[in-house]
Amino acid sequence: MAALVKADLDRVLATVDSDLDSSIERLFAFLRIPSISTDRAYAVECRRAGQWLADDLASLGLTAKLNDTAGHPIVTGTSSGTAARRVMFYGHYDVQPVDPLDLWDSPPFEPRIVENAEGVKRIVARGSSDDKGQVMTFVEACRAYIRTTGSLPVEVAIIVEGEEESGSANIGPFLEAHKDELKADLALVCDTGMWDAQTPAIILSLRGLMHDEFIVRGADRDLHSGYYGGAAANPLHVISKIIGGIHGPDGRITIPGFYDGVVEPPDHVKHSWSTLDLTAENFLGPVGLSAPIGEKDRLLIEMVSTRPTFEVNGLWGGYIGEGAKTVIPSIATAKITCRLVADQDPAHVRDVVRAYIRSKLPADCTVEFLSGEGNRAVAVAHDNPLLAKAAAALGDEWGAPAVTYGEGGSIPVVGQFKKVLGQDTLLVGFALDDDRIHSPNEKYDLTSFHKGIRSWVRILAALAE
Amino acid sequence: MAALVKADLDRVLATVDSDLDSSIERLFAFLRIPSISTDRAYAVECRRAGQWLADDLASLGLTAKLNDTAGHPIVTGTSSGTAARRVMFYGHYDVQPVDPLDLWDSPPFEPRIVENAEGVKRIVARGSSDDKGQVMTFVEACRAYIRTTGSLPVEVAIIVEGEEESGSANIGPFLEAHKDELKADLALVCDTGMWDAQTPAIILSLRGLMHDEFIVRGADRDLHSGYYGGAAANPLHVISKIIGGIHGPDGRITIPGFYDGVVEPPDHVKHSWSTLDLTAENFLGPVGLSAPIGEKDRLLIEMVSTRPTFEVNGLWGGYIGEGAKTVIPSIATAKITCRLVADQDPAHVRDVVRAYIRSKLPADCTVEFLSGEGNRAVAVAHDNPLLAKAAAALGDEWGAPAVTYGEGGSIPVVGQFKKVLGQDTLLVGFALDDDRIHSPNEKYDLTSFHKGIRSWVRILAALAE
Repeated sequence: MAALVKADLDRVLATVDSDLDSSIERLFAFLRIPSISTDRAYAVECRRAGQWLADDLASLGLTAKLNDTAGHPIVTGTSSGTAARRVMFYGHYDVQPVDPLDLWDSPPFEPRIVENAEGVKRIVARGSSDDKGQVMTFVEACRAYIRTTGSLPVEVAIIVEGEEESGSANIGPFLEAHKDELKADLALVCDTGMWDAQTPAIILSLRGLMHDEFIVRGADRDLHSGYYGGAAANPLHVISKIIGGIHGPDGRITIPGFYDGVVEPPDHVKHSWSTLDLTAENFLGPVGLSAPIGEKDRLLIEMVSTRPTFEVNGLWGGYIGEGAKTVIPSIATAKITCRLVADQDPAHVRDVVRAYIRSKLPADCTVEFLSGEGNRAVAVAHDNPLLAKAAAALGDEWGAPAVTYGEGGSIPVVGQFKKVLGQDTLLVGFALDDDRIHSPNEKYDLTSFHKGIRSWVRILAALAE
Repeated sequence: MAALVKADLDRVLATVDSDLDSSIERLFAFLRIPSISTDRAYAVECRRAGQWLADDLASLGLTAKLNDTAGHPIVTGTSSGTAARRVMFYGHYDVQPVDPLDLWDSPPFEPRIVENAEGVKRIVARGSSDDKGQVMTFVEACRAYIRTTGSLPVEVAIIVEGEEESGSANIGPFLEAHKDELKADLALVCDTGMWDAQTPAIILSLRGLMHDEFIVRGADRDLHSGYYGGAAANPLHVISKIIGGIHGPDGRITIPGFYDGVVEPPDHVKHSWSTLDLTAENFLGPVGLSAPIGEKDRLLIEMVSTRPTFEVNGLWGGYIGEGAKTVIPSIATAKITCRLVADQDPAHVRDVVRAYIRSKLPADCTVEFLSGEGNRAVAVAHDNPLLAKAAAALGDEWGAPAVTYGEGGSIPVVGQFKKVLGQDTLLVGFALDDDRIHSPNEKYDLTSFHKGIRSWVRILAALAE
């Protein structure tokens, strides 16, 4: 059985290589559709992108559908063979807006291959990396398998939404409504990056998120700072004192109960961190920083992946125009997000944060909270045997072992795969840090695309065993 | 001599009373001119208001001039009699803009007398209180004196500018250029208020001001709070910690050197504070507050007049639109003002504030300062004999002793009277807290106008002795 799959594998990889030009042509056709989901003017283009993908999946022999939702449609494509194992694949066909257009070197929806000074070939277009190019690595892998062997080594349920860049409002209800047909042994997501251009990566965990907004109120109107200054409570002073006290001198968050549910990863995972070359110099240096400000007794990789955070994302109050205005403002507002890890409960974190803020208010101030929603962290079980298979397959393709680590960001839909469908998710992607996703001149290296397809071929083969 | 002045005084006061209707007519003519100084579209109206006033001063027999400046002209009117003492009077003929116009119950430049439910008559118009109505109390007092006795009991130099509401950029150079002709024994300013509707007030001191703006910078771009959160310095946290630490738990400002130059007023002044009925309830209550936040060992009147302050007037950074955005901003900005008292030097205060802020910066943050200008506090010498005379005159008119105290705000021109002309200033005004200056439906009580004129008649008589 293993030998048979291995022989198949080599033939399928050869198909990928020989078919690369037509794979690129298909990706270019997909990229030419300006499926900007946040802008209602592009609604018809979003549907057209979804339809293009559904047609392409149907051409593979999958049962493909364009499913209507309250927003943009969701594409599904399912195989109906007899393989013992089934995977679900998730991606999105919508893209970010392209403003400012004048910073693009070529029109964002006219994809082209550009060779840089070092001879590296890059596909330049909006969506080339995020996420049409990554989605097509998986689709092309399936196509190569089917074209070469007549079937897939595992059954697949592909689900590609059109609202990832505009809030993913409809994917949750859709998963709920279709959980029987979507359920699989493992979810695969191709929306993340490589560790570096030579080293593949599997994201083992994503931090959760709790976001909140709070308004501190003082006097019932803005006051003259000469007349009232020295006597009247200033909400900007109050909010500063609250925020200024949240991080202790050791970098720990001082809010009582904040760390409830945070757990230490197993020793072998901690040990693996020592192999990661993540330093202040190479991580913070490129953005002009040098000194990690997290808990003093933690590694940098912990600070940004397995430890929770409290971050102020926006703060304002009083006069923010040009020149001076002698005002004591009546309100001050802060937007905050907490990144959550392990078993931290967003509702509990919201409650302890709010209790802390309330406890710090002086007599004449009140506080109002506006949000407080969130989602838990998600993690692949460290001992999931499919994880090891996928890591080995990636290592075979890239000639370097796959790095496995937690990522600091949040992808809420992955939490829903666990909650609604009960399945772990493997996050494997081929983007690079310099892909300029969400920015002008977004690109996807031709190597990311080509070896990305080959990687999925190997992973599908490995998961079949 | 004293008896003669007393007989004159009664006759002059009778003239004020019998002439009130025509005094109101003149004020209305002045109020009808929309002399909004900040709006260039009204430049010709500002000149018209200045010309109207110059003509009116000339009609009194004063040497009146409309003096051109780089901005709006400055009106001067000087007497040339033989009185032993001379006073300078300062006011302004320009007014604030009238937006939002739809909140006015009647057109702002069509003055009218409105009687409220309690039978109190009020002159309603933009500028009625700030400052045309107050300026005309002094002009009408001079008119009544001249009409009744043929001369003034003291010589006067009246100076009325047209840029008080738009920065007073040209008054300083003008004082400098005309100091010989303007020099007097005392400056009088009519741009402040009564203690309450029954109690006149003399403002003994004004706080100075130092304003600054500082920008804290972290990374060289906004960062994703998932990817970098926990490791990258957040300028909003840094600025909050700095501001949050400036006021100690005892209400004192913790910046080393901040209180240099602050002195205690003499005991008899401190003692007089006990007669002022200034409580948290009547001072803070009307704006929805109840608990003074100043130094715990100080009276409320001290907090707002003889003690310095550090106030944040505006603060912002990061995402301040609707919804959430998971960003670690690269910059945070604060606008601050410090109110200064006694001998505090604005440049020294700027330096110690900046040194404090720099001392609190973590490794990865820098700070830039944008302003740092200011002016010293000003005060009438507590033992100036003219002060006692003016206070007694006010007491005679209102039947209640004049309250003397320091005001928390700043009027930079008063500092220039001291610096350029070497003269003390007496701030006497008849505005009330509910005059809605700078707001729709600005008004000036008819009593403020009538008894204001009578008050100046008495003060002029008293200063002659």
